[in-house]
Amino acid sequence: MTGAGSAARVPSGGTGRRPTLAVVGATGAVGTVLLGILSQRADVWGEVRLVASARSAGRKLIVRGAETEVVALSEEAFEGVDVAMFDVPDEVAAQWAPVAVAKGAVVVDNSGAFRMDPDVPLVVPEVNAHAARVRPRGIISNPNCTTLSMIVAMGALHAEFGLSELIVASYQAASGAGQAGVATLRAQLAAVAGTDLGEKPGDVRRAVGDDLGPFPAPLALNVVPWAGSPREAGWSSEELKVRDESRKILGLPELRVSATCVRVPVLTTHSLAVHARFENEVTVEQAHEILANAPGVVLVDDPGEGEFPTPADAVGTDPTWVGRVRRSLDDPNALELFVCGDNLRKGAALNTAQIAEVVAAELTAP
Amino acid sequence: MTGAGSAARVPSGGTGRRPTLAVVGATGAVGTVLLGILSQRADVWGEVRLVASARSAGRKLIVRGAETEVVALSEEAFEGVDVAMFDVPDEVAAQWAPVAVAKGAVVVDNSGAFRMDPDVPLVVPEVNAHAARVRPRGIISNPNCTTLSMIVAMGALHAEFGLSELIVASYQAASGAGQAGVATLRAQLAAVAGTDLGEKPGDVRRAVGDDLGPFPAPLALNVVPWAGSPREAGWSSEELKVRDESRKILGLPELRVSATCVRVPVLTTHSLAVHARFENEVTVEQAHEILANAPGVVLVDDPGEGEFPTPADAVGTDPTWVGRVRRSLDDPNALELFVCGDNLRKGAALNTAQIAEVVAAELTAP
Ligand SMILES: NC(=O)c1ccc[n+]([C@@H]2O[C@H](COP(=O)([O-])OP(=O)(O)OC[C@H]3O[C@@H](n4cnc5c(N)ncnc54)[C@H](OP(=O)(O)O)[C@@H]3O)[C@@H](O)[C@H]2O)c1
Ligand SMILES: NC(=O)c1ccc[n+]([C@@H]2O[C@H](COP(=O)([O-])OP(=O)(O)OC[C@H]3O[C@@H](n4cnc5c(N)ncnc54)[C@H](OP(=O)(O)O)[C@@H]3O)[C@@H](O)[C@H]2O)c1
Repeated sequence: MTGAGSAARVPSGGTGRRPTLAVVGATGAVGTVLLGILSQRADVWGEVRLVASARSAGRKLIVRGAETEVVALSEEAFEGVDVAMFDVPDEVAAQWAPVAVAKGAVVVDNSGAFRMDPDVPLVVPEVNAHAARVRPRGIISNPNCTTLSMIVAMGALHAEFGLSELIVASYQAASGAGQAGVATLRAQLAAVAGTDLGEKPGDVRRAVGDDLGPFPAPLALNVVPWAGSPREAGWSSEELKVRDESRKILGLPELRVSATCVRVPVLTTHSLAVHARFENEVTVEQAHEILANAPGVVLVDDPGEGEFPTPADAVGTDPTWVGRVRRSLDDPNALELFVCGDNLRKGAALNTAQIAEVVAAELTAP
Repeated sequence: MTGAGSAARVPSGGTGRRPTLAVVGATGAVGTVLLGILSQRADVWGEVRLVASARSAGRKLIVRGAETEVVALSEEAFEGVDVAMFDVPDEVAAQWAPVAVAKGAVVVDNSGAFRMDPDVPLVVPEVNAHAARVRPRGIISNPNCTTLSMIVAMGALHAEFGLSELIVASYQAASGAGQAGVATLRAQLAAVAGTDLGEKPGDVRRAVGDDLGPFPAPLALNVVPWAGSPREAGWSSEELKVRDESRKILGLPELRVSATCVRVPVLTTHSLAVHARFENEVTVEQAHEILANAPGVVLVDDPGEGEFPTPADAVGTDPTWVGRVRRSLDDPNALELFVCGDNLRKGAALNTAQIAEVVAAELTAP
């Protein structure tokens, strides 16, 4: 029942057989970006098998330059698979990840189905790569995109200053709600652009009509302070994920975390305004040095010269962009920052690919 | 040198002569909304004189149903004026408000020119109407729109729980940068809507071209973590205004305040995600009761049923909309809230009109 089961199929001693990868959900918002990433990164994979729902079976997608046919999700789809990436809805992952494990694959799951399971590590390679090795259920979880969009930067600062509290407000992109989110925002923008709508009450609601897609309110010319589903005492599932997952990844079960998650009319790339409080006094100079040297982080911080991170600049790139670093005027232990990360890349597909590569290296190690 | 100078012209004893009002900047984003507000509110004014730059002299605008000609700003424009509202850039207000006062008017100024002057009260009628009576320079300042969009709600909670800290992230509309901001966002949206742009790096910058209007980065399909001009240690003028003005309005010179100000692609209505810490323990039930009963506040808080404030719903309305009220999970003294306020109405023109009405009542009191 451990993911190491698959190791049996990979000859030890580094014979050079490359592991077989399955991408489950290859046709989705995350899956599409993942195929691009697989084509760009150093290629560690043998066969790459594309899996989606029966609706997509037979479709041909390009991966590593080759047309590859999508197969329908089934037990057989995992035959001979060493690593299976899951980029599908929670309930599909909950049902099928154990099937893939039983067939001998290590699963790297992008859904929320297993993230808080104590027997499933929650991994961000720059922060806790070591955790990927201990996976009692054969499953490794990829954090939620909102947490991922900031956690590499926060991990680097934590290592130096000792994090004690995070108060964050998010600016989340439409593609965080999948392909449906992107299509909805595009349609709504087409309905309002070129009109004089947007400055009278009800204007935007009338213009975009009743089909709000995956959002609970119009997103064009608007911001929507709600993502996910209702949880206790007024919190959204998305806000609690930021708290629970940040604590688990950083190994800080007592970390104080308050998040307000808000959707904005951006297609891809989540941003967060972060107030981070530390055990120790901080300076902007030290923070700049840490962030400038942190793997996976790009520091862009000269706002008077127009140098700050924005989604339009960060989209399609791999790193976490950080800027607007200020020390709180009333608290020498706290920093304010603004962070952007492509929610489909580092926020999902890239982190999955990085975890899968850690596993591949382990499986093929001499 | 006190604004009471103008009282000399208003016969005491309540003879019923209505004070003369000048609207300086009548053609701007704030001025336009103000003319609408003057037409909607109980009419306390005699003559309403419209003033703008020489560029606009002779233009005819509608106020209280009547076509009124715009006159150019000059000393004569203040002849016989009892109250002068200034909705013009800082430097124009700095130069001309003292001229209006010298001509006998009480000035209600919307610019940033006098807000932190210790001899100029900074007034939000729901919070500190009494402060409007003491105006050594004859000038009353209207707060910045970002502060105003949340302060009525925060004042009500402060009165009950005692505010000790505010950590806010803003979602500020384009019209906060005036008519030019609105025109820029509309043009940028027209350039990107109906295209497949926005998901590759540089896409949006290429589509909108070099003319970014009053913003330091493209605003369509983007968020821009910068508003105002550079101040010490990485802070923007807008962020320091939220701190300085909240302290002054609430009479809390030691209040801890950290703000991150971010522009979003919304035409009008600023939103803020607020983390508010109090001296005393809070409950969501008490906060709901206070907010539901606070003048100028509307509570909209049933997110599972789609009930939360958004700019598209709040735009064009007078109150501060508040929702997403949660008690911090790690701090019984702190609340998280999401607040929306029309930056041109309560955030500017409406608050100015309310202050001017307080002055008018004082001038005409028996
Ligand atoms: N979007 C993000 O920013 C983001 C970030 C982190 C994590 N995630 C998570 O990643 C997962 C995928 O998200 P997404 O945004 O890519 O969603 P999406 O665009 O809606 O794509 C869903 C994918 O799942 C497949 N699928 C759906 N039902 C299936 C079924 N019954 N059997 C087999 N395949 C099925 C779809 O295949 P068909 O095309 O055949 O329907 C498609 O490939 C979700 O768990 C999401 O929470 C998303
Ligand atoms: N927009 C907001 O949300 C907001 C909120 C609170 C406070 N404020 C403040 O309110 C003021 C006006 O802002 P706005 O957004 O309405 O700006 P705006 O749309 O640019 O309008 C500026 C107004 O000032 C007039 N003006 C400019 N230069 C002048 C001069 N030299 N002499 C006489 N009139 C002159 C303009 O007249 P012409 O049309 O003739 O040029 C126009 O009426 C600013 O101080 C701003 O900071 C704005």
